[in-house]
Amino acid sequence: MRTIRIILMGFGNVGHGLIDIIREKKGILAKQYGLALKVIAVIGSRYAIVEEDGIDLEKLGGCDKHSKGILQYAGNVSEISSSKNLLDRLEGDVLVEASPTNIETGEPGFSHIHDALCKGMDVVVLSKGALVQYSKELWDTARLKGGRIKISGATAAALPTIDMAQYNLAGNDIYKIQGVLNGTTNYILTRMHREGISFTEALQEAKEKDIAEANPKLDIGGFDTAAKLLILANNIFGTSLRLKDVDIEGIENITKEDIAEAIKANKTIKLVGEAVKETYNLRLRVAPLALESNNILTRADYKDKAVVFYTDLMGNISIIGGGSDPRAAAAAALKDIINLYKI
Amino acid sequence: MRTIRIILMGFGNVGHGLIDIIREKKGILAKQYGLALKVIAVIGSRYAIVEEDGIDLEKLGGCDKHSKGILQYAGNVSEISSSKNLLDRLEGDVLVEASPTNIETGEPGFSHIHDALCKGMDVVVLSKGALVQYSKELWDTARLKGGRIKISGATAAALPTIDMAQYNLAGNDIYKIQGVLNGTTNYILTRMHREGISFTEALQEAKEKDIAEANPKLDIGGFDTAAKLLILANNIFGTSLRLKDVDIEGIENITKEDIAEAIKANKTIKLVGEAVKETYNLRLRVAPLALESNNILTRADYKDKAVVFYTDLMGNISIIGGGSDPRAAAAAALKDIINLYKI
Repeated sequence: MRTIRIILMGFGNVGHGLIDIIREKKGILAKQYGLALKVIAVIGSRYAIVEEDGIDLEKLGGCDKHSKGILQYAGNVSEISSSKNLLDRLEGDVLVEASPTNIETGEPGFSHIHDALCKGMDVVVLSKGALVQYSKELWDTARLKGGRIKISGATAAALPTIDMAQYNLAGNDIYKIQGVLNGTTNYILTRMHREGISFTEALQEAKEKDIAEANPKLDIGGFDTAAKLLILANNIFGTSLRLKDVDIEGIENITKEDIAEAIKANKTIKLVGEAVKETYNLRLRVAPLALESNNILTRADYKDKAVVFYTDLMGNISIIGGGSDPRAAAAAALKDIINLYKI
Repeated sequence: MRTIRIILMGFGNVGHGLIDIIREKKGILAKQYGLALKVIAVIGSRYAIVEEDGIDLEKLGGCDKHSKGILQYAGNVSEISSSKNLLDRLEGDVLVEASPTNIETGEPGFSHIHDALCKGMDVVVLSKGALVQYSKELWDTARLKGGRIKISGATAAALPTIDMAQYNLAGNDIYKIQGVLNGTTNYILTRMHREGISFTEALQEAKEKDIAEANPKLDIGGFDTAAKLLILANNIFGTSLRLKDVDIEGIENITKEDIAEAIKANKTIKLVGEAVKETYNLRLRVAPLALESNNILTRADYKDKAVVFYTDLMGNISIIGGGSDPRAAAAAALKDIINLYKI
């Protein structure tokens, strides 16, 4: 049995979900993978729990998420002054970075990941920001320090995109990737197609159902799709492209008429993220495309995601589906931990 | 750079394809995975090439397949008396087993794999027979000897089914698997659906196009699907089930009328292999099922394959597509070699 000491950064939906899953899966983790996962710290934005002998996951799972839950578990803890200082004095094997993400600054994720790598830890990343802004820096640091970075939870969560490219398709030349990578926009477009409603109506509905955020600009403007595409592309193709290198067009201007026209032509409009290898270039773009009905991406409905990999040896391979809830994202992190350490 | 010594058993379409791919991918294998693949022996049913310093892949790639190609490469070699004796005196890292398969006897694959494991080698398996007949024996031997067995090429070749379950979905409870796993029957059913032709007509057409074999019993009777399902199930669920444990119904009795009725109900008939976890049992069956049009398996047309994994944490994840030519199967073996040894 191998004991792995986990430091969890962030205790929102996904962080809390991970705590639950690690507890529920204890038996399987031991039996099937030879792993005992010991969470030695949970670090929120204001408070932290540190227990080097392992946090009581049953108890923590019964607490709320965010600062409130940490306080419920730990009673009267003092506010943390700096997560860096805290991280510095902890001895863990892997950092799970699940802080709130900011794809414009990459923080606080970048500092967390960088600090952990510098301490010789491995990192499992769920938040996109650092990977969008500092991909090259992080991989350079990992190489230098001998640490490993796993990013399943930061690309399409439960849909295994990066594993697919790096493990299942190892040895292939992947010359194109096309994906429906954002659940919110896909929900909106699906509703527009099925019900003939307008973009504004569909967006309103998505907000009411908590599918779209109050400020949905990142989703409907195509930026979330672009961020996921960029992370995938930089990791699969070894490039160091930036968000500014992605041609981005959102779905704000898709009209009822556009949809009606697509339907008449037996097509479906999807917001597609696309990476295409050109002779001297990797071209990245996000745009609403009218896809032929035999394109497998048209089968991703509502909050579903889907990706098609075009390869030289194995033909075209598509993956589709995957839960889109925080628990599914947490499961992607657990998967990464297993694949890093399983015996 | 890590040098891996490969012994290739079988020099048919797939074996020859692997030789080609290893040669073509030399640069990528070195640069991306730190691997130098050295083929030290190619063992056919009657003749063999042994070159401990590495066979000239350029030259061998230019030769025919089968015994004829081996003789073209090696000139006047004497017939081999026993591949076991030959294997015994070779020092390799990995055996690639690509001999003609016999799912009733499991030979000659079983002897090859067993002998290689006993010598402390790893094995990459492309032929199904041994895995269908001797799954438990092989895994027991591997455990005892510390060898590893990879089987991507033996389940759905280019479609990464086993990797999906064991790597991409690690930590999940997979409680059901449904797949369209046989290209020949799927071609026949697709033609019957699209053209309204009879089973006999569609089969005849498949034979003329070299999609169906002269004796297509294994395919149309559902046995090939059952063999793949069994290999998947035993490896994913850790069971030791046998072919006799699979309920098998083929597509021989599907009539034009069955198809017409399915179309009227907006359904599609597919030959489905299904593994379902029950409380005290794993139920395996192969049967033609009329699937609802929203079932993703209905999107696997002609020679396409598809598999849906039902999981507790990540929802339903489907994979679809993948080349079905010998080169794609060879690529599955190369992928396994990379994942065994990459640096």
